[in-house]
Amino acid sequence: MAQEKEFVKDVADMREDFPQWYTDVVLKAQLADYGPAKGTMVIRPYGYGIWENIQRELDARFKATGHQNAYFPMFIPYSFLTREKEHVEGFAPEVYLVTHVGDTELSEKLVVRPTSETIICEMYAKWVNSYRDLPVLINQWANVTRAEKTTRPFLRTSEFLWQEGHTLHRTEEEAREETLKMLNVYIEFCKNVLALPLFAGRKSEKEKFAGAKETYSIEAMMQDGKSLQSGTSHYFGTNFAEAFDIRYLDSDGTHKYPFQTSWGVSTRLIGAIIMAHGDQRGLCLPPFVAPVQAVIVPIAMHKAGVLDKANELFDSLKSAGIRVKLDDSDQTPGWKFNEYEMKGVPVRIELGPRDIENGVITYSRRDKVGEKFTMPLSDVAEKLPSLFKDINDNMYAKALAFNESHVKTVSTESELVEAVNAGNFALTMWCGDRKCEDKLKDEYQISSRNMPFDQTPCGDKCCVCGKKAKFKIYFGKAY
Amino acid sequence: MAQEKEFVKDVADMREDFPQWYTDVVLKAQLADYGPAKGTMVIRPYGYGIWENIQRELDARFKATGHQNAYFPMFIPYSFLTREKEHVEGFAPEVYLVTHVGDTELSEKLVVRPTSETIICEMYAKWVNSYRDLPVLINQWANVTRAEKTTRPFLRTSEFLWQEGHTLHRTEEEAREETLKMLNVYIEFCKNVLALPLFAGRKSEKEKFAGAKETYSIEAMMQDGKSLQSGTSHYFGTNFAEAFDIRYLDSDGTHKYPFQTSWGVSTRLIGAIIMAHGDQRGLCLPPFVAPVQAVIVPIAMHKAGVLDKANELFDSLKSAGIRVKLDDSDQTPGWKFNEYEMKGVPVRIELGPRDIENGVITYSRRDKVGEKFTMPLSDVAEKLPSLFKDINDNMYAKALAFNESHVKTVSTESELVEAVNAGNFALTMWCGDRKCEDKLKDEYQISSRNMPFDQTPCGDKCCVCGKKAKFKIYFGKAY
Repeated sequence: MAQEKEFVKDVADMREDFPQWYTDVVLKAQLADYGPAKGTMVIRPYGYGIWENIQRELDARFKATGHQNAYFPMFIPYSFLTREKEHVEGFAPEVYLVTHVGDTELSEKLVVRPTSETIICEMYAKWVNSYRDLPVLINQWANVTRAEKTTRPFLRTSEFLWQEGHTLHRTEEEAREETLKMLNVYIEFCKNVLALPLFAGRKSEKEKFAGAKETYSIEAMMQDGKSLQSGTSHYFGTNFAEAFDIRYLDSDGTHKYPFQTSWGVSTRLIGAIIMAHGDQRGLCLPPFVAPVQAVIVPIAMHKAGVLDKANELFDSLKSAGIRVKLDDSDQTPGWKFNEYEMKGVPVRIELGPRDIENGVITYSRRDKVGEKFTMPLSDVAEKLPSLFKDINDNMYAKALAFNESHVKTVSTESELVEAVNAGNFALTMWCGDRKCEDKLKDEYQISSRNMPFDQTPCGDKCCVCGKKAKFKIYFGKAY
Repeated sequence: MAQEKEFVKDVADMREDFPQWYTDVVLKAQLADYGPAKGTMVIRPYGYGIWENIQRELDARFKATGHQNAYFPMFIPYSFLTREKEHVEGFAPEVYLVTHVGDTELSEKLVVRPTSETIICEMYAKWVNSYRDLPVLINQWANVTRAEKTTRPFLRTSEFLWQEGHTLHRTEEEAREETLKMLNVYIEFCKNVLALPLFAGRKSEKEKFAGAKETYSIEAMMQDGKSLQSGTSHYFGTNFAEAFDIRYLDSDGTHKYPFQTSWGVSTRLIGAIIMAHGDQRGLCLPPFVAPVQAVIVPIAMHKAGVLDKANELFDSLKSAGIRVKLDDSDQTPGWKFNEYEMKGVPVRIELGPRDIENGVITYSRRDKVGEKFTMPLSDVAEKLPSLFKDINDNMYAKALAFNESHVKTVSTESELVEAVNAGNFALTMWCGDRKCEDKLKDEYQISSRNMPFDQTPCGDKCCVCGKKAKFKIYFGKAY
């Protein structure tokens, strides 16, 4: 049971009202605020700092796998959207349309990009002529817009920030390999940078991206047992290449369509961090994306030498590349402890006269609230990076244990519904028929999440219709 | 006189048709391409690489001066635009308007941001309550849109990328200091990173930002003698704070309006780089923003050991943090030399059997085409950074000499027109009356650029109307 003192002012009890807890934490920690236009969000500096760290870490991984960044226009002629049949059906109802400049009506209305496949394909058709132009390995960091009925900061907003990789390959094999390679980049990144264990697998036909042949997703389990789809990687085959007439002259002298992929993650990842790691005290940020990795709280600041020593430590950590903050404001240490716990700062360093006398610091870890540790003052700059790694790994292990204890293997519809309603993912067998998915969705708001790569059967009948099972699959409630 | 061999296929003679030369270089070097919607631009990987380096360098400077990044929604309720009178007059005719989502008309149309003062002020009004909340030092990296009649890649496009700093201060003095501080950040950055000497000063009332009290600009001189306004820093006073009711409780117990600034540069800087440094061979990129800083061209690649040594050098430069490319394609060295000259790569390293035998590399500098140098193979990784600095400084000195030889001090209208039409800036005295500016604009398409900080008079009469002069000012033609 949580202690009374764990509670933060203006933050709901997460065990009683998880959605309210989430919103309260987002606002109280100043991660985001509501924008004036319906469904929009302002990402405040503390939230944007997390996104900058996500960007830097992911971007390095994209470049290490041979990708380059580019930027494509946000305005897409409406006619482009209609060229790939499934794509237009998927996106047309929720696109924002620019119809006027000032008082003048445009001759063709413009779509504000909900995703960039169409405009990128249009350009690729122009750029790719020969097999020598392949592969094309391009990523874009951009804002995209989709009108949403129900919105929540980071999880679902009318405008959000993301990256979208769009690649072209000479062979189907290479494109399929890219699709999974980038999924694995996301998995590795989520583990080592966000301390986030995932459920990775292939989406059902019903849940795949509009226009894709196959969609793979990473699903993160939140502490209410719901799933947050946190990233996707799509194999397109030649669907878009045919629709946009991207063809190249192969070495055998014939014209061919290249095979295509796209893959993306968004600011939604910040929502995953909040809901996978947070607790009643507020945020708990993974060290490698925390805007402030360590905060120094001087104790008995007025005593001679304390602030000097605190500043010295601050400088040494800063020059070691650590994102450090020194709070020398006139608030009490107690107030500061609560504040930085609420803000999820991974390491809090206390430095008072006695510490200085002993040549140590006293520190606390946000992932082990209540415990206190010491280390020699002279070692701090050197030892913090491995401490951060340890915190990340501990947070990962904790989240993994939560995930594992919240997966129930079931074989009937009633077991499935019971498991999911109790805050779990249900792992089960499925016939592959959309009707069974529709039934669960319509009756219980339960959706298929994905089909794990390990397809070792856990039964032989579809848990809904009882017919012969084809796939092992996760079902759950989703954000 | 340029030699015949300086000419690159498909690139116009810059002395005969500078605008065409510019467009040819942009397309041929694959910096950008035309987007499908009117006036839009695709920034291709080679151009975007320059932007990424600009971003990284500027962002470090913004953070070193205490700023944080945030992200505000792109969609702004139309009513916001109308709150600051001059602002709406300046921007309303060129704003893109979202009127529909899918088939549904919106109850209030949305402006796609042309700049973010209004939406940011709306949020600041909510966030700033006490003098303790000041200063607010926030920057945003974002895309903005303005419908333009005549567009050219990087120089003027319907959508472009930029950063916009928006700050609030307790005193007028502090806000004015911020305005000039950020102008100076731009000047230092342009000098040390883009090798770009500037004309910095205050804009006339006619040319200032819609809603500002004062606008300062940096103007770069292009090799056709025209000016490219490359960045601005605005002092707003309390104009927007009053319009958006941003008020704080000061320590004296009264409510006050804070003083405000904004400042920005955009992808236009890439246009400045191209037109300030380029030549008949193509681009000449400043080393600290060049996507490829050094290219290794192996000579007699088939000879034993050459490729191994080239790869070894590549690895050592890469781990030294240098942006290096090894071109081991089957094109001839001559083809590669031309290609990387056209692409403006600052340093070309040749490595052949004889070089390896002598333990040296042969290298060329893009800023000194035709000369060849050598250095010990073992020194390359260590010496390249200072070579890059030397190249940057040499490019800066060359551009500065160009600038200085293309400023004519004039005292009559006919002298002014003659000087500007011959490809110069005219430095002159001006009465401060808008009518004189309008006359030059209407009759000769000549505009005031800015009033330099050094206002030592160069005469006492306005060069247009002959009345008493108030300001020393630059006039010129502008992009």
